[in-house]
Amino acid sequence: MSQTVSSPLYAAIDLGSNSFHMLVVRHVDGSVQTMAKIKRKVRLAAGLDDNNALSHEAMQRGWDCLSLFAERLQDIPHDNIRIVGTATLRTATNINDFLVKANEILGHSIEVISGEEEAATIYKGVAHTSGGVGRRLVVDIGGASTEVIIGEGFEAKALTSLKMGCVTWLERHFKDRQLNTTNFNNAIDAAKKRLAPVLEQYTQLGWDVCVGASGTVQALQEIMLAQGMDEVITLAKLNRLKKQAMQSDHLEELEIEGLTLERALVFPSGLSILIAIFESLNIESMTLAGGALREGLVYDMMDNLRQDDIRSRTIHSVQIRYQIDQCYAQQVSDLASKLLTQCGGQDWISEPQAEMLLLTAAQLHEIGLSIDFKKGGEHNAYLLQNLDLPGFTRAQKHLLAELTRRYREQLTSLPEQHALSVTSSKRVLRLLRLAVLLSHRRCVELEPNIILTAEDDELTLSIDKQWLQANPLTRAELELEANRQTDMGWPLNIQANE
Amino acid sequence: MSQTVSSPLYAAIDLGSNSFHMLVVRHVDGSVQTMAKIKRKVRLAAGLDDNNALSHEAMQRGWDCLSLFAERLQDIPHDNIRIVGTATLRTATNINDFLVKANEILGHSIEVISGEEEAATIYKGVAHTSGGVGRRLVVDIGGASTEVIIGEGFEAKALTSLKMGCVTWLERHFKDRQLNTTNFNNAIDAAKKRLAPVLEQYTQLGWDVCVGASGTVQALQEIMLAQGMDEVITLAKLNRLKKQAMQSDHLEELEIEGLTLERALVFPSGLSILIAIFESLNIESMTLAGGALREGLVYDMMDNLRQDDIRSRTIHSVQIRYQIDQCYAQQVSDLASKLLTQCGGQDWISEPQAEMLLLTAAQLHEIGLSIDFKKGGEHNAYLLQNLDLPGFTRAQKHLLAELTRRYREQLTSLPEQHALSVTSSKRVLRLLRLAVLLSHRRCVELEPNIILTAEDDELTLSIDKQWLQANPLTRAELELEANRQTDMGWPLNIQANE
Repeated sequence: MSQTVSSPLYAAIDLGSNSFHMLVVRHVDGSVQTMAKIKRKVRLAAGLDDNNALSHEAMQRGWDCLSLFAERLQDIPHDNIRIVGTATLRTATNINDFLVKANEILGHSIEVISGEEEAATIYKGVAHTSGGVGRRLVVDIGGASTEVIIGEGFEAKALTSLKMGCVTWLERHFKDRQLNTTNFNNAIDAAKKRLAPVLEQYTQLGWDVCVGASGTVQALQEIMLAQGMDEVITLAKLNRLKKQAMQSDHLEELEIEGLTLERALVFPSGLSILIAIFESLNIESMTLAGGALREGLVYDMMDNLRQDDIRSRTIHSVQIRYQIDQCYAQQVSDLASKLLTQCGGQDWISEPQAEMLLLTAAQLHEIGLSIDFKKGGEHNAYLLQNLDLPGFTRAQKHLLAELTRRYREQLTSLPEQHALSVTSSKRVLRLLRLAVLLSHRRCVELEPNIILTAEDDELTLSIDKQWLQANPLTRAELELEANRQTDMGWPLNIQANE
Repeated sequence: MSQTVSSPLYAAIDLGSNSFHMLVVRHVDGSVQTMAKIKRKVRLAAGLDDNNALSHEAMQRGWDCLSLFAERLQDIPHDNIRIVGTATLRTATNINDFLVKANEILGHSIEVISGEEEAATIYKGVAHTSGGVGRRLVVDIGGASTEVIIGEGFEAKALTSLKMGCVTWLERHFKDRQLNTTNFNNAIDAAKKRLAPVLEQYTQLGWDVCVGASGTVQALQEIMLAQGMDEVITLAKLNRLKKQAMQSDHLEELEIEGLTLERALVFPSGLSILIAIFESLNIESMTLAGGALREGLVYDMMDNLRQDDIRSRTIHSVQIRYQIDQCYAQQVSDLASKLLTQCGGQDWISEPQAEMLLLTAAQLHEIGLSIDFKKGGEHNAYLLQNLDLPGFTRAQKHLLAELTRRYREQLTSLPEQHALSVTSSKRVLRLLRLAVLLSHRRCVELEPNIILTAEDDELTLSIDKQWLQANPLTRAELELEANRQTDMGWPLNIQANE
């Protein structure tokens, strides 16, 4: 039996303007596993006076937090630690007073990174954790700075760090803690002014997808989820939330379904900045990034994880970690792809993400067996819902979970989901089930020759009669499956050819 | 990144008197993973006439089932397949008619094994999947035979196969399908007569624990679970169930909470045999075995899985499969053991299984991290509840799940469980949490020197004051933990020594 060698730990510490964060991870078979997270709301930015000097109280809050982190750093190799300070530390005029003692406490040096470096690191964090191809616009609203980046693959093409953030905008535009039109408008207008100098460059470069990092976008996702919306952020939704926020007069009274207390204080200011960015750059939609600054630091140290196709890396890592028979997974995936082509490919399932999701479900539909054969589908769903899957959005994870929950036996209709249309998701499920059923003997040579044709929702599977007679288990299962799909109102005919 | 080689499949087929079963498994890092299960109720025993000749209809039902199995056998290496026939095939006078065609269909030879061989294989299946030390009495009630075995470790000391089973006893003693005292008494008395010849040998050999295999005992477990009882089968519970059964007059009307339709027909006859065995051998209690005939066949082919300490094999396999840092797990386990000793060992937690459960929880409390850091405790519980853990009973798995659900952060009281007393389980949880908290830096050298003392439920943790000052994170967490445990009514004092 093999022995697991305990793989070394890595730590990334981010001394932000609102909170200090420590992330401890290790590398496990092509994935980054979180081992510990420590966060303290130090509110450093609130300690800057009008001359940008950091108060002693704020420094003390920072040092207290760092002494907690320091204890945890003792068991981590020196080269596996990165500690960076951002906007507030860049700005503070008496930064050296803070750093001397801070470095002493940590036993490590803090790097105060420039806005551009911060933007570059955030982009790395996004690139290593997000799927999809094409040019990416990345937005990260921090406590005292906002980074806007355009990149492609692992290469950033434009890096900007703007001096505005949810903490500074709170103090500047919601100082009276009133949630009224004036404050929101002022905050939005001021943010647009900050953005103005870079608009031309960004608009010219253009982008295919837009992702957002940071607490503000995270809070939005939680609210949208709690309110039953899909995960795509649009300007219409942002304006709806602004309206919801203005139903309270004061920040202290702010109540929005899904908004946690912890995020409430800086939510209106962050929302204002995001609205300004959407309007200035004409952004159609945005999704949540899988990582940002800390992930950028971590992946930077783990250079071997760099791979252009994030989704492939994720699938491969999950297969290894859950001991999936990869040859068999490939067999099911190949057959699913063939069935889709026979049905007409994109003529039959038009959404471009559908094939990717079908093949991913085929690659991963046996992870639940690692827990137990009985209820294997339930275990699939539990794992895919809860695993960190870099390259897949939350909605895609949800659909993968629901598809693989139903990969065999009883067939029930898919619940509401936001990754594909109802028609596409249903068709993907039908092909997945057929591909699994027809490869159940785990050997390409033993697969039957079949032709699957589709007319709208009616599927016809043509298969050799003699083969069927020689393979009664498959025949029985195909008959059952035809009944199951047909009972769902999705006709499936099995046609035995002479 | 490593590559998983698809490990070969193994198949065990058991042609029983009631059902034919096929089990397909593979070997994954020290554990047996089920890949497929196929079962058909062939009711072979019902096809024997008064002269013990098997009817053609019964043979045909058998052949039909075997042709399903045969399809699935194609992708399994020849040497990895075992197919055995039991009681009905031993008895049938025209067995050759059946076997010639059956072997042809399968492309493999069926071994009709003797009763003694059957008993020996069942014992292997039990020994490979059950924990605990000492001498074991094993009871397996089949369709047409009942095996009774005594063994120790992997060695059987007495092997008996009796000609009675739940199908034959149904036909003989419940032929009129009446659930009355007469039928039950006749069935019980007849079973006692069958047992009489071996009573002396078994009573003289003696045993420490008793486990039951087969559908009857499985059905009992399901009923007891559904009715909220613990998992230990006693004569009192069997008699209570007999009473419940007699509330229906006819077998067709039988309704017992937790009894599935599939098991209902042969439940009264199986129950009668079990009552006879309990009374004749004076059995105090019985638990469900983790495996029997098919598992015995499988483990026999996978010789490398033989290890005397089943629980150690299970823990090690789970650690490998879920990429647990084994050094760290050992550190927490060692510390937990030390804390228990400091508290007085068995004087403080008297139940002998408590320490084993504490150390197992310590060894496995990080498996949930393989899914995600967030809700790591929930993932622990999900996995431990659902994983097949040879050597641990269902009640023990449940407690391990509930302990590791609570290994860090919020503390809530344990739900009802049947593995330990309320007091013991609470104490085990407290020690587990302290051991985890105090080893959070994953390095034995960085552990503080501590002394934990217990007076009833009041714990006092003495720890060096200077160490505490130098380790503010642990200090903060210990203070939190002291509050949490004390708030639960479980006083924990932290005493800082000069």
